[in-house]
Amino acid sequence: MKLLLVNPNTTSAITDRLMAAALQAAAPGTEITRVTAKTGVPYISTRTEEAIAAVAVLEILADQGGAYDGAIIAAFGDPGLLAAKELFDFPVVGLAEASMLAACALGRRFGIVTFAQALGDWYGDSVRRDRLEVRCAGIRALDEPFAAVADVQSEKQDKLVELALASVERDGADVVILAGAPLAGLAPLVADRIPVPLVDCCAAAVVQLEAAVRLAPRKATAGSGKRPAFKPSVGLAPGLAKRLAGDT
Amino acid sequence: MKLLLVNPNTTSAITDRLMAAALQAAAPGTEITRVTAKTGVPYISTRTEEAIAAVAVLEILADQGGAYDGAIIAAFGDPGLLAAKELFDFPVVGLAEASMLAACALGRRFGIVTFAQALGDWYGDSVRRDRLEVRCAGIRALDEPFAAVADVQSEKQDKLVELALASVERDGADVVILAGAPLAGLAPLVADRIPVPLVDCCAAAVVQLEAAVRLAPRKATAGSGKRPAFKPSVGLAPGLAKRLAGDT
Amino acid sequence: MKLLLVNPNTTSAITDRLMAAALQAAAPGTEITRVTAKTGVPYISTRTEEAIAAVAVLEILADQGGAYDGAIIAAFGDPGLLAAKELFDFPVVGLAEASMLAACALGRRFGIVTFAQALGDWYGDSVRRDRLEVRCAGIRALDEPFAAVADVQSEKQDKLVELALASVERDGADVVILAGAPLAGLAPLVADRIPVPLVDCCAAAVVQLEAAVRLAPRKATAGSGKRPAFKPSVGLAPGLAKRLAGDT
Amino acid sequence: MKLLLVNPNTTSAITDRLMAAALQAAAPGTEITRVTAKTGVPYISTRTEEAIAAVAVLEILADQGGAYDGAIIAAFGDPGLLAAKELFDFPVVGLAEASMLAACALGRRFGIVTFAQALGDWYGDSVRRDRLEVRCAGIRALDEPFAAVADVQSEKQDKLVELALASVERDGADVVILAGAPLAGLAPLVADRIPVPLVDCCAAAVVQLEAAVRLAPRKATAGSGKRPAFKPSVGLAPGLAKRLAGDT
Amino acid sequence: MKLLLVNPNTTSAITDRLMAAALQAAAPGTEITRVTAKTGVPYISTRTEEAIAAVAVLEILADQGGAYDGAIIAAFGDPGLLAAKELFDFPVVGLAEASMLAACALGRRFGIVTFAQALGDWYGDSVRRDRLEVRCAGIRALDEPFAAVADVQSEKQDKLVELALASVERDGADVVILAGAPLAGLAPLVADRIPVPLVDCCAAAVVQLEAAVRLAPRKATAGSGKRPAFKPSVGLAPGLAKRLAGDT
Amino acid sequence: MKLLLVNPNTTSAITDRLMAAALQAAAPGTEITRVTAKTGVPYISTRTEEAIAAVAVLEILADQGGAYDGAIIAAFGDPGLLAAKELFDFPVVGLAEASMLAACALGRRFGIVTFAQALGDWYGDSVRRDRLEVRCAGIRALDEPFAAVADVQSEKQDKLVELALASVERDGADVVILAGAPLAGLAPLVADRIPVPLVDCCAAAVVQLEAAVRLAPRKATAGSGKRPAFKPSVGLAPGLAKRLAGDT
Repeated sequence: MKLLLVNPNTTSAITDRLMAAALQAAAPGTEITRVTAKTGVPYISTRTEEAIAAVAVLEILADQGGAYDGAIIAAFGDPGLLAAKELFDFPVVGLAEASMLAACALGRRFGIVTFAQALGDWYGDSVRRDRLEVRCAGIRALDEPFAAVADVQSEKQDKLVELALASVERDGADVVILAGAPLAGLAPLVADRIPVPLVDCCAAAVVQLEAAVRLAPRKATAGSGKRPAFKPSVGLAPGLAKRLAGDT
Repeated sequence: MKLLLVNPNTTSAITDRLMAAALQAAAPGTEITRVTAKTGVPYISTRTEEAIAAVAVLEILADQGGAYDGAIIAAFGDPGLLAAKELFDFPVVGLAEASMLAACALGRRFGIVTFAQALGDWYGDSVRRDRLEVRCAGIRALDEPFAAVADVQSEKQDKLVELALASVERDGADVVILAGAPLAGLAPLVADRIPVPLVDCCAAAVVQLEAAVRLAPRKATAGSGKRPAFKPSVGLAPGLAKRLAGDT
Repeated sequence: MKLLLVNPNTTSAITDRLMAAALQAAAPGTEITRVTAKTGVPYISTRTEEAIAAVAVLEILADQGGAYDGAIIAAFGDPGLLAAKELFDFPVVGLAEASMLAACALGRRFGIVTFAQALGDWYGDSVRRDRLEVRCAGIRALDEPFAAVADVQSEKQDKLVELALASVERDGADVVILAGAPLAGLAPLVADRIPVPLVDCCAAAVVQLEAAVRLAPRKATAGSGKRPAFKPSVGLAPGLAKRLAGDT
Repeated sequence: MKLLLVNPNTTSAITDRLMAAALQAAAPGTEITRVTAKTGVPYISTRTEEAIAAVAVLEILADQGGAYDGAIIAAFGDPGLLAAKELFDFPVVGLAEASMLAACALGRRFGIVTFAQALGDWYGDSVRRDRLEVRCAGIRALDEPFAAVADVQSEKQDKLVELALASVERDGADVVILAGAPLAGLAPLVADRIPVPLVDCCAAAVVQLEAAVRLAPRKATAGSGKRPAFKPSVGLAPGLAKRLAGDT
Repeated sequence: MKLLLVNPNTTSAITDRLMAAALQAAAPGTEITRVTAKTGVPYISTRTEEAIAAVAVLEILADQGGAYDGAIIAAFGDPGLLAAKELFDFPVVGLAEASMLAACALGRRFGIVTFAQALGDWYGDSVRRDRLEVRCAGIRALDEPFAAVADVQSEKQDKLVELALASVERDGADVVILAGAPLAGLAPLVADRIPVPLVDCCAAAVVQLEAAVRLAPRKATAGSGKRPAFKPSVGLAPGLAKRLAGDT
Repeated sequence: MKLLLVNPNTTSAITDRLMAAALQAAAPGTEITRVTAKTGVPYISTRTEEAIAAVAVLEILADQGGAYDGAIIAAFGDPGLLAAKELFDFPVVGLAEASMLAACALGRRFGIVTFAQALGDWYGDSVRRDRLEVRCAGIRALDEPFAAVADVQSEKQDKLVELALASVERDGADVVILAGAPLAGLAPLVADRIPVPLVDCCAAAVVQLEAAVRLAPRKATAGSGKRPAFKPSVGLAPGLAKRLAGDT
């Protein structure tokens, strides 16, 4: 099985973290290829940046996705996810969607823990998009500056553990998602300090995508997952324009 | 009061329809300037096309929005609306949001009527985004081909009236929204054939934006409406990049 | 445009506050006439008092409403609002409904701040009536006595600002409604002390009613907004009895 | 146990039907006294008429309620119910609230069947007020004229049975409420023609009120059920004014 | 009226408490017979133990229920309740269902207070099962060890009162349920220390069951309350097997 | 990876179907062992039968589960699932939970199609248990007799396809679950006749369980997933009693 991991952030050090966590979670025989967005911002944390990233993701998938069995949109707010699901024929998952579905299998209510206040509100959009508010115990985010986003998980490890404990003890979470691409790979390192199952957002995406690929669902030709009717366009990246036009 | 009407569709004939409906609804003293998207598709009807349009809208607003008291995103699914609300200092409304809020003041439950099946699911995203499912009696869409999108409101007038009647009689709508930029201006023409208040999506956007401008809300510096922290970016349109970077 | 502002409280000093705030918000060309309830209590704050005020409002509108383009029920819990919407042919708005719809356009979640504990539960009825619970971040109310209800906004200004800040910082409000007729006109005075948009309940009612009048909706003859079938009655005020009987 | 049955409709023939059904359901030792509203309309079926009836109910309870262990507001939309619960010290139930709670004990989802289209929307207000939408399978109402409201249950018996069957077979109701004061006493007559439990709205009110009285709950002095703070008033019926002022 | 009170816990001292509270609440003429489960655990507090108790309850009801007008499943999480409602012809109530419905008649939002942290999550299942989340202000549980479950109500009386007060003051409860079979009979002893109505879970079950019996609902032959189609089985207790097979 | 597939129905022909579908979906290296319940009914379709099956499942898992990396409860209503998740240390999935979570990744709204009317209401319990009502487009069930439950998928294949088409076209499903153990393995046979992705309930359970095992979640020691406190019991199967007592 060949999977494409798309980092919509332009920071390649985050891609490296994601890749390491992905490989650790992957089943034997799964090959994963990484790609980092060339347009956008170093780290996505608002709706504006998500909107920009969504198009970047669609461009990458239009250009490269066809060679893979499935793709991961490796930012927690899942920029472009619903669009990609309708536009492409292969399964696509996002870190947020995959983490939440994995968490639903591991506990009645999940908490979300992340490393910056700005992310909380945007991550909440994913919870609402997937209509999982009643399964979500709350979102807790670090409220202090850090040195480098790619290393925040080690610099702030103790604080993140404290947030996870608060999620369990005060919010009533039965399972905690460590959310955000920069936290990929953190879960196994702190699992013994937190009394409920942890979900590593990148590992969850890999195993959920493997599961989806193995179910081999057919591409929808009806309903909200069907491919958009072919249309001309103006001013788009060539690969994406071709996909919209039905030329690929 | 000076308002900017942004048509995210690339079809200027639709912009003309929108402009006519907007001027008819505007208060004395309101000036409206139109702009048509230069990148994108002739008519947006899917999540993919919305994602593309969202960036086009942000680019236009970054370039031109600063000269206005407020802006209308004149496509019913409101591409880029939440992003624009956080990124810019002036009030921004979308056809869907404005229509639904206007409808909530006119009846307990609103029906949405539009001209193409493909739109229904995407329009439903707007209902869910604004958490108004319980106020929505349902979405009904025409299920037959038409000659030209810019003229669909006259070609299919009788069929659209039938759908509005079904929305009232079968779905229990107390008020009906005629949804989609190509239907702008239709409501006054058919009001006497439908036994509940009609909402013209473009007129609603104008009066709601005027109302918002008159309330003169301050720009949020906290909460989900605050401007994103300044960030560098790569590969974006210059005006949008400057806005992200805090240079405008 | 001629609007009628009905204060369901019997305190004329509150009517004066409402009128001042209304005139400040009104568009050029809007004329507003005030009327104060002659039956009822000085200040409505419970369901019992709302029930009493509802009939007083219907009586006033039956007697005087016909001369206006629209009417404002100027108490935050909107006594008689849904009844008035079905009984009369002109648009009617209430402070609570108008504030909440205006707030929905200005932020994802609104907080409500008011000046007396007793009001909180009753105001919550309005949120539930309009099915906007998921958009409401919470209701916060002053918990201390004040000298005179008509002057509470100046006497307790600092405390009310503290409550608004708590609504933003602890409840996650993106926009705050200063709720209750006695707080009319307060928002502009404290806007620079609160980091999110404020909604003045009376200003919101004026601009929302202007918007509704400009949309010129037809009176419903179907659905829940249609006029009740004509009926005889016993013991009612003459104007209201005539309206029920279809004589006006 | 002494109970007061208040018919907010001014039609005494309906009071007679209610009384007969109430006596049939009452436990040995329960005495029931009837009273018919002297102000209002012959039969309440809209929000306007409910608003008017609410005050009539409060006046009656203020004058006579103190001599009873509990009171029934015997119209299905429960005019004045929440106000009466806060204003008086004895338990008060309404036909709608009592029927729905009784139905919840008898099946997962209840259907509501009534005799006039106009009632459906207003009855829906009761379902929403009590937040029981998810337990309600739907409301079905007769759509044809009848000779006299007090006899509609016999004139239209077969049609009402058809509606109840449709509620079970098409809406998925597990239990059906025969709703509206004029249908009081109908349930036992048609129980063998409908394959799920039936709830007679008046019988349900009696047994639920008996249950509430037997639990002997104390009057709340906190929360939304506490008595309003004493207030002066202008222009109200003397008994109600005294109760508001704390003189009774 | 003859009622069967089934204690699914194996502790007969709890049955005694339940019986005393039941007799105190029962109407004149109601006879109550007690039975204690012979298989299971001393005190049920988890989903595992509920699953085990559910079968024990069904066995007892299959063996003995036929001689009664109705039955109470006297553990707060109502083990086996929905199954019993479909399998048997007489009305069956559970402590949780009955308490919550009684509470809904006594206040807008109910709090639940109990004596052990472990119970909170399981009791929440009952709230969700009956879709009453929006009426529930919260669940509060004692967080300290006690000497004997059958005497916890006297040993921890002051602490339980504190929890009830917190439910009112901090959670906004209008009525409080003292939940769990070991708390049966506590409500009357502490009613004067808590400013809202209290619901005794066992008393509520008795009066609600009396009410249901008096309504004399017919056994459903359609919908989710109908008896399961007859089936053979292997390895079940004889009485239950016969009931499944249609032999009783 | 070694997985245990527990069929709570006593029909071994159904176990064979399940096993074949499970093996087809399993990853290389996954070993699956089957076990058929020895107590209970041939085919579970009501809440009563679910209650009975739940204990049978817990007994089997207590006896045999410890030798496996995870277990599947292979009946669509997931008897005993939440209890098993708290009682045992290995991951446990059910057909309903796994199918719904898999479906959520494949489309916005899932339809459920099954082969007997009786199942619909019970299957709905699973949707509600997992709080996924808003993601569920509806449940459709065959309404005609069949020869043998283990062969219903071939006997009624065309009818089941019709139901799936209705789920898409009339209910708006974006993905369809073929639900019920006897339908295991049907999805791949009819995928080309239905225009949206299909979910085979048994295949979904296998891939979701593999995903859960690979994430290697720790056993909760807090929250609703923690093991019940050790307790003595009376009358239970020895293995289950030992597990409850903490002896295994």
